[in-house]
Formats: sequence, structure tokens, C-alpha cells
Amino acid sequence: MTTYAEQTRAGIRAILKPHSVAFIGASDDTAKWGGVLLHVLRKFKYAGAIYPVNPKSEAIQGLRAWRSIGEVGQPIDLAVISIGVDAVEQAMHDCAAAGVRAAMVVTSQFAESGADGAAKQERVLAVARQAGIAMIGPNCMGVLNANENMALLNSTALVEYFDDIPRGRIGVVSQSGAVVGAMIARAGFVGAGFSSCVSLGNQADLEICDFFDYLVDDPATGVICLYMESARSVERMLAIARRARAVGKPVLITKAGRTPDGQKAVASHTASMAGAYDTFLARCRNEGILVQTDALQMLLTAQALQAFSLPPVPGIAIFSGSGGQGALGSDALSDYDLVPGELSAATRQALSPFFTESNQQLPYDLGAAASGPGRNRPDLIEGSMEPIFADPAVGACVYLMTPQGGMDGIAKLFTELGREHGKPALLANCASGITEHVRQTLLGLGAPFFPSQHEALLTLRDLEWLRKYDGPDPVQEIPALSAQLQAFTRALPEGMQDEDTSKGLLALAGIDVAAGELAVDADAAVSIAGGLGYPVVLKIVADGVTHKSDMGGVRLDLRDADAVRAAFMRIQHAASKLAGARFRGCLVQPMVQAESELMIGTLYDPEFGPFLLLGAGGTLVELMDDTQLLPAPASLKAVERAIRGLRCYPLMDGYRGRARADLDKLARIGHRVALLAAQLGARMPEMDINPLAIQGNRVVALDARFRWCSQGVG
Amino acid sequence: MTTYAEQTRAGIRAILKPHSVAFIGASDDTAKWGGVLLHVLRKFKYAGAIYPVNPKSEAIQGLRAWRSIGEVGQPIDLAVISIGVDAVEQAMHDCAAAGVRAAMVVTSQFAESGADGAAKQERVLAVARQAGIAMIGPNCMGVLNANENMALLNSTALVEYFDDIPRGRIGVVSQSGAVVGAMIARAGFVGAGFSSCVSLGNQADLEICDFFDYLVDDPATGVICLYMESARSVERMLAIARRARAVGKPVLITKAGRTPDGQKAVASHTASMAGAYDTFLARCRNEGILVQTDALQMLLTAQALQAFSLPPVPGIAIFSGSGGQGALGSDALSDYDLVPGELSAATRQALSPFFTESNQQLPYDLGAAASGPGRNRPDLIEGSMEPIFADPAVGACVYLMTPQGGMDGIAKLFTELGREHGKPALLANCASGITEHVRQTLLGLGAPFFPSQHEALLTLRDLEWLRKYDGPDPVQEIPALSAQLQAFTRALPEGMQDEDTSKGLLALAGIDVAAGELAVDADAAVSIAGGLGYPVVLKIVADGVTHKSDMGGVRLDLRDADAVRAAFMRIQHAASKLAGARFRGCLVQPMVQAESELMIGTLYDPEFGPFLLLGAGGTLVELMDDTQLLPAPASLKAVERAIRGLRCYPLMDGYRGRARADLDKLARIGHRVALLAAQLGARMPEMDINPLAIQGNRVVALDARFRWCSQGVG
Repeated sequence: MTTYAEQTRAGIRAILKPHSVAFIGASDDTAKWGGVLLHVLRKFKYAGAIYPVNPKSEAIQGLRAWRSIGEVGQPIDLAVISIGVDAVEQAMHDCAAAGVRAAMVVTSQFAESGADGAAKQERVLAVARQAGIAMIGPNCMGVLNANENMALLNSTALVEYFDDIPRGRIGVVSQSGAVVGAMIARAGFVGAGFSSCVSLGNQADLEICDFFDYLVDDPATGVICLYMESARSVERMLAIARRARAVGKPVLITKAGRTPDGQKAVASHTASMAGAYDTFLARCRNEGILVQTDALQMLLTAQALQAFSLPPVPGIAIFSGSGGQGALGSDALSDYDLVPGELSAATRQALSPFFTESNQQLPYDLGAAASGPGRNRPDLIEGSMEPIFADPAVGACVYLMTPQGGMDGIAKLFTELGREHGKPALLANCASGITEHVRQTLLGLGAPFFPSQHEALLTLRDLEWLRKYDGPDPVQEIPALSAQLQAFTRALPEGMQDEDTSKGLLALAGIDVAAGELAVDADAAVSIAGGLGYPVVLKIVADGVTHKSDMGGVRLDLRDADAVRAAFMRIQHAASKLAGARFRGCLVQPMVQAESELMIGTLYDPEFGPFLLLGAGGTLVELMDDTQLLPAPASLKAVERAIRGLRCYPLMDGYRGRARADLDKLARIGHRVALLAAQLGARMPEMDINPLAIQGNRVVALDARFRWCSQGVG
Repeated sequence: MTTYAEQTRAGIRAILKPHSVAFIGASDDTAKWGGVLLHVLRKFKYAGAIYPVNPKSEAIQGLRAWRSIGEVGQPIDLAVISIGVDAVEQAMHDCAAAGVRAAMVVTSQFAESGADGAAKQERVLAVARQAGIAMIGPNCMGVLNANENMALLNSTALVEYFDDIPRGRIGVVSQSGAVVGAMIARAGFVGAGFSSCVSLGNQADLEICDFFDYLVDDPATGVICLYMESARSVERMLAIARRARAVGKPVLITKAGRTPDGQKAVASHTASMAGAYDTFLARCRNEGILVQTDALQMLLTAQALQAFSLPPVPGIAIFSGSGGQGALGSDALSDYDLVPGELSAATRQALSPFFTESNQQLPYDLGAAASGPGRNRPDLIEGSMEPIFADPAVGACVYLMTPQGGMDGIAKLFTELGREHGKPALLANCASGITEHVRQTLLGLGAPFFPSQHEALLTLRDLEWLRKYDGPDPVQEIPALSAQLQAFTRALPEGMQDEDTSKGLLALAGIDVAAGELAVDADAAVSIAGGLGYPVVLKIVADGVTHKSDMGGVRLDLRDADAVRAAFMRIQHAASKLAGARFRGCLVQPMVQAESELMIGTLYDPEFGPFLLLGAGGTLVELMDDTQLLPAPASLKAVERAIRGLRCYPLMDGYRGRARADLDKLARIGHRVALLAAQLGARMPEMDINPLAIQGNRVVALDARFRWCSQGVG
């Protein structure tokens, strides 16, 4: 007996490697889907059997046609259905009767058009499921498999422009057909090529993860690109990505809807919710997925991953025939989080036959070499480039090709040097249309062509990110909640919790809190303060008071009993004048002078699970957008790296003579908070410690709050 | 008698509109400069007289040649000199003797190659100056003037690829010849065109501002692009930019060296110092100059300024044949500080014959229209696009052209709708190489072709910036220093000033300071506190103490006489234990509870003058890079706009229930500080108030310092 997964695979094979294809709705008119798909399939010499089906014709596009699929009388792997929306259900019945293995429903006006269409889609799906027919679509633009010469995809580039399918090892699965079309057009231009491309359509039956899973095991596929608008079955997607990583296939995802404007666009495009982006990004990055914002750039990076090995070190070497463009490119590096290589003394020495001293450095300026000491040497170009490729501080090279003489020869040499030294060598076009022959030269060498400096540097940023990626945070066992925490949370009311309760939770989780104690009168406050040691802080505890400071409910730096007593009376007095406030006493806490502050929070995303959120402390965290998001639980190493990644990190690292924070300790706190988030899951939708006060190795939560939802959110 | 400026103009006319050109070093070999320049000049049908000069040939490239320039015996406007570096001086003597009006020295190995070359350059220049010959170069790649059919520029695109000069109204002046070459190649590709292009070389005589000034008055030039690496004569450049604005010619500048990496590259390229970038940027922006980071993008924006009027409102309408690309484009808008337009109810109504309800919004999705209710209407495309162009909330339109049917017709219609409605309509290529005919169609219409979505959105960002630009900050009279400030500054020691002195300066400038008074003993402190009113703060005043807080020298929130007395004793005691500290007393200040904080500073740049610097208060200002820089003096309006431009501004604008800051008051303080910076100029290289405490309309400088340099810096 075959499993559901095996059935799915067999269905996908019938779609991507069919021995025979029937066209229900085949047409002579290539302006119609049933015409253009048949045309493009034959254009690229598909070797399998083709059965046009059309009740009104005996021949279509010169092929014998059948009046119904039932009349074909041969095994049919794939039926392409492109007829009126109301006829599709019957056609699926006919396919079932004819023993068809898979169906591609091109017809639109299904779920994407509203409730009526959705009902029709359900009925078609029911027929297919009943008959065990794997279905792609409806409302899809088709698929191609370059190694089978099978182009069954309405791509303008394939239909009207290309003489061959761009062949390579990139597998593409896309929720948008036109995006696949744009990637195909670009592939032909930049020298990228595909194993298979899939336009998913409405994903009524087969969905993105089914094809993704298939491509991980497809020997013809070396790198996988996904374009998605909504992310359903996220955990499955991430699990497949882990499999891809295990077999060494990079995964790239472009997801539309990362901003509110894009989310609106997605909703109108495919009637799907884009979902949260930051949490999606954090989960994907943890798995080593290269998340992209542009599908065309995704293709360039995918091709670079096929054409080059990863750079061994971060330093970038910029080459140009133009000192000006080289300077502009050097300026641009930091915009892409890239750094230039610093040439060694030995390399400078090796450059000295070609360059005067001031030019024995990056960026490489061919103009300077051509007027330098070695200007008459026959090996001028190779001799002046080679030492830079060889320098151990250079990880990748990019040539900014402005108009100059001998561009083809330079492109060829540059590409060969990259291969010889095992370093990425990207040629970026800065000469617009006059580099057509350079493009041809590169494509002839199997090297990619980067249409602009911007695209080359974006690609290098991606390669550098992958170079630094050192695997996902190790999976950690999540221990059961302690008995104390179980008891504590059982007693919690619903909703946002006050400071005292929140600190109680944190203390049970092993976080140091400036807990203090509740004093119900001034004498008690003095007694508690004596126990804690001066100076102390008093904070009002009262129902109906939200902004403690604003109403005079916080008194800092109280240095003796008299000060504590006076402060208590003043707070009590202030509360008595506040309508609706019910005074319950004051928290007495030690006064903490923080050298720096951090915000440590958690959030639970119904789709993507629990996360740890780190940021600059205080109010600025929101405005400055200086945060790091990690899937929870999170290892000490991951937390430490995230803290180092904050722009405010220098404040914790001895900035302007401050004491260095105990980073180990901070990481342990983050780790514990993340563990708590994982343990409580949907029951704690959000929590934040803000600020966490840091003074060297003394780290204390000064204020905190969390929301409790005993039934869980989502 | 002619002025120097008139002489310069006449010299530039002789270079850009010569009636005759002599070539000293003319050659048959187009691999040599004297060959290729002669060849390219003739290729584009220059109509003036041409006199090749070569002592060894009687004919060059089929033209009669002269053995020396003296033998020509005809008036010579321009002599092109491309001979060995050591022969140039004599050639310049020959030019002088022959009455040549201007010389273009192509030869390199002058100042750019070191001290020896610099000396040679000086000697050549002396000869030219003596003879009244205007000189461009040495080490330049040439010039072109499209309206004179004069291409005297070693541009690979012109020499090898183009059949015509890209003609238009863009004037280019560049410190890099290869950058001009790249711009020419791009112009032919994207449909941009030039009036004149100038490669400056070493600027021994004629420099960037001379040509800039000329182009402002050149009727053939409508927009001016400058590429520069160093900025000399900055004030002159800005004055010329003001003239350009007055005559309605936009100015764009790309300046290399905005980062340390770029600065190193500039130094090795042209041996020039790139200078400060932020202050350069602030001065340029104030004058309405569009500062660019990429010369190729500069050309696109310049062309857009010729092809389109500025958008009337900010809203961007994204069009695409691909719902997916439309969604990605919508996501991208915020990366470019752009916002989508919000269609009116009337527009949605006008779209209803073509779109189902969910698609009656932006982004425009042609795929949705083509399967929508009006899919059979002959006016489908025009009818569904036109209402969007007409919507008053739409300021500019961009079509993301993925591969689709009928691309030419769409491009034409889209361009025409833009012209009809007076709104920019940018077609961005998202279909790579298969849009060659679309590009041709657009160029035929005189419309620009944007090679990518990125470049179209960068261009829209520039147009939007210009749309919002409402003129430079009005020039303000800088009043003389008051007698009090004169006396105060006369007494200042050199170097960094302490808090007390700094606040003294600010108080005299009309800024409220939490001045407090110096108490030399505890009794005095109590007496001062009584006068100020409780609570107060005590801060140590001592020589040799830099970090006041760290050594226990700051005591906050002192609420009565006992607390003040105790605090004074503790501070004095702490100072007594600190080696090298000489205790002078304590500042007694009112305790200020700030709702928010601001940093207000000044800096003086020897090249660009005095500036006002605004930023988030506290330490984060440096790490978060949230600052605004304004030339000083600065108007109230300019300061207010800069404050609103800070990312931390919401903290001052009622964020989370805070009191709103008195923005007028903040602006007045900024204005006064800027005035002080302008008055003191180079004598006050830097000053900062950090923090300026803000509580509603109470705004007080809590801490401040400045550096004094009685002789001025720079």
C-alpha cells in the first residue's frame, strides 16, 4: 500500500515527467491557453505522446485530435484542462474515467474570484481526490522541466523569444505565474537556468511544500527558489528546508507582503493573508534560508550559488577600468554590509611592477595600471589582477565594467582567475547596452552576467550571509514547567499582569529582579528599606494607576529612613487626590544605577510559534527599530550573537569608558526568558522586561509585564 | 577690457564650440589618443576646420597634415595636445605663437602621477596663462557638444558602438573621464541625451565650477550633472547652483568619497581629499541640489526631470501585468521613502467595469482586469488605467513590466496617459532582455526606459524629494556678537570648556539653562537650594574629574535641607578619596524631570562653514545615527522641519500619552544656537547641549560643553 506522501510524489512525477499529455480544450488559436500551451510544449521538442482533445476538430496544430479524453485509449499521465470554468468538473470526471494520473487545471474564475468560484473549486477537487488524480491549480500558468524538454508553461519569453529552455540546476516553485515568467526571461539574459519551474495557481490540491519536498530529492535540482504570498504549513516548510540543507541544496524564498502596502496587494492578488513577516524571517534565517525581497534578485543569487563557491573570507575586491566607478563602488560596499579586503604587503609587492605605490591597493584601477610602470608589459592585465585574487584577505571579486577597450578579454580573464582561485568573480555591467558581446562571452563560459553594480553587490551580500551562517540553533529539549511555575500560572488572572506579578514570574524563572517588597505603611517601608540597604526607590502599588511616574508615584534615590518615610507619605497623599485610584501601598526596591539598559521580551506568533525579542532598553527601542528576533528556545550562543548584533551593543561593551557588561550573564538571562516563552507558548502572547538594568556583572529586571491567556491565543 | 570671468567664458566657448580644431600629435593609429579623438570627431560630422599636426606625415586619416601648428596659418580655436608628457610645454609655446585660443591637454603623467609630474604641469600652465590660452586638462578624456556635432571624447560607446551622439538637454561635467563614458553608454540605452559633456582631467586651469557656471547660461542645457571627487571652491559651486535654480535648471551631483573606503579610493584615483560628506550634503540639499551616490542613476534622474514634470502629490500608483510583481513593488515603496496613492471612491467606481471589487485599488493588476468583468471590452487596458492617472491622489505612475503580451502597446498607452495627465509615468523593465522592442518604442516616443524596478523607484524618490523642496533657508543677517558675549569669549581659555562655562555662554545666547549656582560649602548649598525650591540636584565641580556620576559626584532628587547637606558631605568625601581631584564645590540645580530629551549641537567645518546638529538626546544619538544637520544660521522653519525629521520625534509629539513638547520653543532654541554658531564661526569648532530636557513648554539645557579656539580652526 502506498502512503499519501508516495501518492503525492507519484502525482508530481506525472506532472513534471509525464510520458503523455492530453489537452482538454486544445486549440489552434495560440491566443488561447489550450493553444499556447500545446504550441510551446511542441516548440521545445517534448518527446512524449500528445493527445489534443476537442469535440469540434479532427486535427489541432497539425496533430490528430480526439473528441473526448475517453476516446484516446492510451495511458495518460497528465491532462491539461483549459476550458470554461463550469465545464471543468465534468472534465475531471472524464479524466477519472480515462485513468488519468494527474491534472493541471489552467482555467481561472475559481477560488481567487470569490465564494462562488471557491465552491466550484471544492467540487472539482472532490472529484480529483475521489479518483486519486493529483491536481495542480486551478488558475495556474503551467510547469516546465528542462531536462525532459517539457515546457508546458505560458511564458512570453519561451513562447515568443527563446530558442531553447534556459537549462540549469535551479528549481522554482511560485505562487505567481507571472513571477515565474519574469524569472525565465531573466534567466535567459543573465545565464541562469532551470531544472524545473512550477506555477502553483490556487493550490487546491498540490501545494508549495509538495513541490518543494520533491525538488529536495530531485537530482537535477541544485538550488531551490520559492516565491510565496501566504505561508501555510510553515512547520512543514521549515522541516523540508532542513532536509534541503542536509543534502547541500541552498533554499531562497521571496515572500510578498512584508509591509502593510504589500499585504494589501497580496490580499487583492490571491485573496490570501500574508501573515507576519518578522517572525517568518527569523524562523527562515535560523534554518539558513536566504530570504529575498525581489524574485529577480533571487534568481541572480541562486545562479551565483551554482556558479561560485562561497567566499572563504569577507573581504571584497573591487575591480574597474574606471577609478571613478571604483571609488563609487567602494563607497557603496557599506550599504550592503560588505567590507573591502585589505591587501597584504606581499600582494602590494606583487602589484608593484604594474602600479605606482598609491595604487597598490583596492579598488583595482585598470586605468592606473595601464599608465603605470608596467604599461608596456604584455601580461599587464593578468599580471596586475592575479595577485589580488591570490590574496588571502580577498574573499570575492567584482568587476565594475564601464565602457573600455577589450571588455571581452577582461571578462574572460576575470572569470578564469575566479575559477582558478576558487573565489566568486562577479562581472557587473556598468556600460549599459554596449556590453551585449560581453554578456554573450560570459554566457558562453557558463558564468553569470550581473546587469548592474547594485545586483552584484546584493548577490555578494547574500553569499556573505551564507558564508557566515553556521547552522540552525541546536534543537533544545524544553523541560516541563517547574511545579512552582505551574502553581504560579494556575493562579493568574487573564490579561495584562502588573509589575509585581510579572517580576514574580521572572523570579521563578531564575531572573534577578529588583523585586522589593510591598509596604502597606511608612513604618513597613522603612523596615524593608533597612533590610535592603540604602539607597532605595519607592513605587506606588494601586489599582487604577497606569502612569506611575506621572502622578508622583515614583521616588528615587532615597538615602535614609526619614527620606523613605517622607516619600511614602507624599505618594499616599498623591494617590488620595487621584480619582479612581485605590492605594495598596508602595514597593520598596533597591536603587539601581544602570550603566546601560536592555529590553528583553517574548512574543508568541500563532503561525510561527514563540520568539525572544531583544532591543535597546527604554522607549527608544520602538522608534529606533533596533531589535533582534530569535525563535525560542534559543541557545546561549544565539542570544549572545543577537545581543552583539544590536546597534546599541557598544553601550554594553565599554563604550566611552563604561564598565563592560557581563555578556555571558546577559546571554543566560535571554536564554532563560526564551525557555519560559517556549514553555508557556500560546498562553503568554507577550512579555517584556524593560528595562533590564546592566551594571557590569550586575543585571536586574527593573520593570516587567506580560499578558496571560490561559486558553492560549491563535 | 574683458574681465577674468569673460575670458574664462570665451575659453570655454572655444573648447565647446570651436570653429577649428588642431591636433598636436594627430595619428593614423586609433589605438592612440591623437588617432581616436580625430577619428571620433570626424565620425559625427563636425563641421569646423580640422588641422592635424604631425612632423612626420603629410596626411593623417586622409586629411592634409601640418608639420607644426605654426604652419597652419589659419585661426585656431582649440588645440588638442596628445603627445609625450615632456613635449607638452614646448607645444604650448607653439600654440601661444600660433594664437590658439584654447588647449585641451589629453596627455597624462602630470600632477596625478606625483611631484615630478606636478612640476611639469605647473610649467605648462604658466605658459598657457602667460599666453591667455584657456586650458582643459591635462589628463582629460575630452569633451562633446551634441548640438555642434562635436564629439571630441574618447568614449568607447561613441567610438565603437553608436551611430549618433545621444542628443538632449543634459549637461555633464566630470572629474572622471570613464564615468562620463559610462554615462554616454547608458544615455544611448535609456533614451537620455546630452547638450555637452566635459571630462575635466587634472583641472590645472579650467575647473569644475567654470564649466558648471557656463552650462547655467547655456540655452541648450536644461539640467546639469556633476561628478566630483574633491570639492574645491565650495562657496562658488553653491552660488552657481543658486543661479541654476533661479533659471529653473535642476542640478545633480554625485560625489565619490562619502565613506572611509571611498575616500581611500578617491585619494589613490586623483590624489585629492574627498573632504567631509555630511556637511557637503547638508549645504547641497539646502540649495536644492539632488545629491546622488551613483553616476548612472544620476543620469536616469536627470532624464526623468527632462521627460516629466514633478509629481503634483506624493502618492505612487504601481501598475503591473503581474499581481506578484505588483505586490513586491508595493512592499518596496517604503524602502524608497515612497507611499502608495489611495484611490478615491469615484476612481474605484470608474474601475468597476473592469475589476472585481477586491482589485479596485492599487497596485493595478492587468491580469486581474483581463479576467475581470470587462475582459471583453475593447478599451480594457486604456479604460482600466485611465481613472488611476486621473485620480488626484496619484502623483506618479510606474509600470513594472514583466513578460506579457502586447508590451509595446501597453508601453505606448502608459506613456501617453502620463503626458495627458501631466504625471510622471515610468516604465520599469522587469522582463530582462525580451523588452528590446519596448525600449525601442519608448525611445521612439522620447520617453525614458528604466532598466529595473530599483532604478525607477530611486528616480521617483528623487522626484519626490524635489517636489517637497521649497527653496533654501532664507539668507539671514548675522548680527554682531553682543557686548556681553564679546566680553565673555574674550576671557575664555583655549580648549574644551566645563559645564559651568558652557552654560554661561548659552545663557548669554538666550538659552534657558539649569544653571544652578556654585556652593563652596554645605551651608551655601542649602541656602541656594532654598532659593531654587526643592527638589534639587548636586553636581561636583572639581578639577581633574571627568566622569562626575562614576565617582559619586552627582546626587539627584534631593528634597529638603537635610538631604542637601548630607549629599554635599558625601560628594566632598568622595572627592577627597580621588587622587588628583581638586574639589571646588557643588553646583546646586533644580531637579528637572524630562519627558523627553534632545541633543542640540554645532560644528564648524573649515570647508563648509558652521552647522547646527540636532539629534536624539543621551548616548544613543551616536549609535543610532538619528541626527539632522543644517547649515547655520537656520530659520525657525528649517529647525522645526529638522526636529520633525528625527526618528525620535514622536517622543516629543505626545507618544504614549506624553505631554507634547512646545515645538515653537524648541525651534527658537535651535535657531539661537545656530546663530551663535554662525557668529562664533571657526572659533567654536564644536558645541553640544546634551541633554536638552523637555517637559511640555519647559525646555532647559541640563548639560553642555564646547571647544574654544581663539584663532579659529581650519
